[in-house]
Amino acid sequence: MGLETAENNVSMIEGRNAVREAFRAGKTIDRLFVQDGLKDGPVMDLIRRAKKADALVDYVQKDRLDQMSETGRHQGVIAQIAAYEYAEVEDILKKAQDKGEAPFIFLLDEISDPHNLGAIIRTANLCGAHGVIIPKRRAVGLTATVAKASAGAIHYTPVARVNNMAQTIEELKKEGLWFVCADMDGEIMYDLNLTGPIGVVIGAEGSGVGRLVKEKCDFIASIPMKGDIDSLNASVAAGVLAYEIVRQRMKK
Amino acid sequence: MGLETAENNVSMIEGRNAVREAFRAGKTIDRLFVQDGLKDGPVMDLIRRAKKADALVDYVQKDRLDQMSETGRHQGVIAQIAAYEYAEVEDILKKAQDKGEAPFIFLLDEISDPHNLGAIIRTANLCGAHGVIIPKRRAVGLTATVAKASAGAIHYTPVARVNNMAQTIEELKKEGLWFVCADMDGEIMYDLNLTGPIGVVIGAEGSGVGRLVKEKCDFIASIPMKGDIDSLNASVAAGVLAYEIVRQRMKK
Repeated sequence: MGLETAENNVSMIEGRNAVREAFRAGKTIDRLFVQDGLKDGPVMDLIRRAKKADALVDYVQKDRLDQMSETGRHQGVIAQIAAYEYAEVEDILKKAQDKGEAPFIFLLDEISDPHNLGAIIRTANLCGAHGVIIPKRRAVGLTATVAKASAGAIHYTPVARVNNMAQTIEELKKEGLWFVCADMDGEIMYDLNLTGPIGVVIGAEGSGVGRLVKEKCDFIASIPMKGDIDSLNASVAAGVLAYEIVRQRMKK
Repeated sequence: MGLETAENNVSMIEGRNAVREAFRAGKTIDRLFVQDGLKDGPVMDLIRRAKKADALVDYVQKDRLDQMSETGRHQGVIAQIAAYEYAEVEDILKKAQDKGEAPFIFLLDEISDPHNLGAIIRTANLCGAHGVIIPKRRAVGLTATVAKASAGAIHYTPVARVNNMAQTIEELKKEGLWFVCADMDGEIMYDLNLTGPIGVVIGAEGSGVGRLVKEKCDFIASIPMKGDIDSLNASVAAGVLAYEIVRQRMKK
């Protein structure tokens, strides 16, 4: 037995049967929490299903599961399901193709704040981007909070999840995309040519774009900063850079 | 007796002596909640002090105060103090003058989300604006959550509170400012001349800029929207419009 409950606005499924049923029903499971040390048949079966479905498997102490559990009957397994379905990177490219537009994609490098992720998906929708790519690890997924902050954009703008952002950038370069990331040490964005098929890379709150991902970028764009503090809010920075692209595409 | 407690990240002061001491110490009190029907001397004294200090006075049922109270000893009065000190509109104009720059001010029409207010103050700081003006009523004040979301900008960028935004716009027009608000039915922002002394008006989440305030604006700027949903997040919209002003000021 198990129940579907909501914790921190993420839907959680508890108990072995309930989790197995969720896999069977084809629900998108972001993450499977398994009690450390459990190796019996039913649990190993769930771990196999999780790996096949490309979900993360986290081995945690029983205490942690007890804390997460709302029913008190997790039986050593709790699955976190996505509030919304993920798309594939190919779906995003196809959307651009269907519209007859040069691809315009947001790539988010480890955004952990659900309000920021939601606001960025909202911006992606309104500025005419074809989709958003997020990493599987160290980032927030499509939770209910993200959906709410996206103001409904999550229903229209495809969001794909990838294992390795740097590798995804390499693959998209073969499709003709150029990549620009926002960082303080770049060239003023107004001086760059940001027309054409483009991927906009936005770094994590605080730490910015990771080195490996940054090295893959063709351009580093800086947003002019005249103030006393370090950086814009990640969703504001994404919006400002995205609309510079909109402006350049409109006037050309 | 009373204690200083935190509720919803706003500092609250409970009890008659504690509130009187807060007024005496010159703390900025945003709002005084008074139990409806209380008219004794000490309470009337606090109401007089509140009005003199330009704080809002809210008469509420005892139940409400009981709910807000952390100590259970509010004695019919709870004061909500600002986490940070407010500036005056004159301070903002003086900041522009001291820098030898044309004034660049954000005016926020009823932003109620503290994360948005914080992110907008952060943007105001970084895009080189001289200050932010918010209304006293129907808007969030400078709470601890706002301060955190501002990433420290609240320590540098003056924030003034006014009773009547439309009237403040009229007064600032006499100082030579032009006003632009963001709204869907305006002219595409790239086609407007947004250089010169300027006030940027950002409307409430959801409802947008109020009619009275909108009528005072010289320009209505629209941010191009190509998507399926209605509007950008308020702090993203503020950032996008503010940086169009930055771009125009840089290239002129």
